[in-house]
Amino acid sequence: MIYISRRELEDICSDIFQRLGIPEDEARDSAEILVAADARGIQSHGVQRMKRYADGIKAGLIKGGVTPTVLRETPVSLVMDAEGAMGLSLSKRAMRRVIITAKEHGVGVCSIRNSNHFGVAGYYTEMAAREDMLGVALSNTAALGVPTFAKKAMFGTNPIAFSAPGHDGNLFSLDMATTVTTRGVIEMLEKEGKQVPPGLAVDADGKPAVDPTSLLDDMLYQRGGGLLPLGAERNIASGYKGYGLAVMVDILTALCSGGVFGEAVRDSAVTSARVCHFFMALRIDIFRNIEEFKNDMDKMLTALRETSPSEGANRVFYAGLKEQEALAASGKDGIPVPKSIWEDLQKMRINYA
Amino acid sequence: MIYISRRELEDICSDIFQRLGIPEDEARDSAEILVAADARGIQSHGVQRMKRYADGIKAGLIKGGVTPTVLRETPVSLVMDAEGAMGLSLSKRAMRRVIITAKEHGVGVCSIRNSNHFGVAGYYTEMAAREDMLGVALSNTAALGVPTFAKKAMFGTNPIAFSAPGHDGNLFSLDMATTVTTRGVIEMLEKEGKQVPPGLAVDADGKPAVDPTSLLDDMLYQRGGGLLPLGAERNIASGYKGYGLAVMVDILTALCSGGVFGEAVRDSAVTSARVCHFFMALRIDIFRNIEEFKNDMDKMLTALRETSPSEGANRVFYAGLKEQEALAASGKDGIPVPKSIWEDLQKMRINYA
Repeated sequence: MIYISRRELEDICSDIFQRLGIPEDEARDSAEILVAADARGIQSHGVQRMKRYADGIKAGLIKGGVTPTVLRETPVSLVMDAEGAMGLSLSKRAMRRVIITAKEHGVGVCSIRNSNHFGVAGYYTEMAAREDMLGVALSNTAALGVPTFAKKAMFGTNPIAFSAPGHDGNLFSLDMATTVTTRGVIEMLEKEGKQVPPGLAVDADGKPAVDPTSLLDDMLYQRGGGLLPLGAERNIASGYKGYGLAVMVDILTALCSGGVFGEAVRDSAVTSARVCHFFMALRIDIFRNIEEFKNDMDKMLTALRETSPSEGANRVFYAGLKEQEALAASGKDGIPVPKSIWEDLQKMRINYA
Repeated sequence: MIYISRRELEDICSDIFQRLGIPEDEARDSAEILVAADARGIQSHGVQRMKRYADGIKAGLIKGGVTPTVLRETPVSLVMDAEGAMGLSLSKRAMRRVIITAKEHGVGVCSIRNSNHFGVAGYYTEMAAREDMLGVALSNTAALGVPTFAKKAMFGTNPIAFSAPGHDGNLFSLDMATTVTTRGVIEMLEKEGKQVPPGLAVDADGKPAVDPTSLLDDMLYQRGGGLLPLGAERNIASGYKGYGLAVMVDILTALCSGGVFGEAVRDSAVTSARVCHFFMALRIDIFRNIEEFKNDMDKMLTALRETSPSEGANRVFYAGLKEQEALAASGKDGIPVPKSIWEDLQKMRINYA
């Protein structure tokens, strides 16, 4: 593991993006969002994805410097066609716009179609939290999730993010896939030569998937099978919950913007699928005095952090706490980057000259 | 089982509420919402709860004819103290108001504190769907849910409801507890003399709860233990998801309105706890032409309904489909009411003379 300062890692990624023809402002924003994931300990959405973004840019599937088309606009809302823009920098701009709208009107919403992978959803909701707002960010993704009682992927891992601020940077920040697991976890099991534990995924017949390699193949070649929705493990009666949340995300992102939804959302061979996003900001002081709100937030988060752990557990967390601690640590010690990823980044700087 | 027409069952419940001193308009609305649950096959939130509401009214904990206090108001938002009003009729009024706001401004939100049990959350979101809007309804509830790695209830079953319309009454309607199960299921296991299956609940030490009777006692006397959040079964890594969603509901309902949250929300001996709600409506045509949106909704819901079931399963559903089918059946055949509940209703009409 190599420890690198946030600034240096951002500069490297921004440089790679610019070598690939992405304009400087978009490259800087995109690099910042990727590195923010690593800084929070969310490596899966960090700089290890650079190669996948780079391949998408080279293939012309992810585009720098495009102007999104405004499809519909009201004082509180905006709908755009991203025209294949960089999902990262575009989403930051969209959330900034939503925040400005909420400053004026109390609420701002934005639905976007035809965008690309936007990295870590919590980045955008934390932008809102820093402005004393509640933030919501959603995205649909390539279809990998299988409805309860079915055997074919009909929706994505469709993440939901929500953030709310306490005092002095204290933060509740939820960022979750609506499937019970992700493809990344299945890939890890394959690398480790392990079987898929029951309750995570089904094969093309809808039976519990066991072999990670054939599951990944089945998903890749769309032969059926896929990840179970949140709640589908063991107690099949709760499977409708994650499934329902995933469909809700498809509605707010894709059906509201006129984008691609459901099983039609598919990754290409080189990069992630064109996807749709939804952003919302709610100004907290339309509800309540912000100081009182933050006092209660601090009280609630402290109570959750300090409740006794169960036998065998060390600590109780709340959503975002681990990430905030990782952020503080990486600010002090630098951001940890695996050596192989670090070398890949160096190669990209040379190859994309 | 007795089959009763919707109108007759509503009249009976409304009559009981009025005998208890609830004004006619609130009694009618409340009866309608309870019966709507039974008509959709959601007996847990239907007329079988009349006794619990009646006890709350008699104890002065649920109040008829009170005027909620407006705490804060903007063109798009409203925050109220319900002053202990009937949660059912108050919530219908709040959602109606939110819909009117969304008609004018595109978006409407409302956060309410100090209310009472509001019945089936999906009733309110379907009101929005019928007006070509997306509806959201949330409520916090008595603390029964245990954070991941903890052993004490720190949040409620905190339901999330979301509805979106297709053409001709076609409807996606999600209404889910954010815990993996509910107290009602544990009570059923006790009645049937069964053990609690693994992954549903923990005891006061945070170990898997086995005996439903001691679990119910532990929860009642706040000795610790409780229901696991959605995703906490088996794969502990997903437990943070249901836990996070539950906290999000607490924030939007209670922290936004200045109400009671977390472990402090407790049912009384006679009725459910004072709780907080959140309602939102988004006019679909701020995003997209409503016909196009509904075309895609129909396409999506049809694809989900028609995807092949897995081996051993008969059908694939989507959120709200079972309820819509039950609604159609009860419209034709009458609403099924267990004989014991029917007799209880008759007794209440006599006793509350």
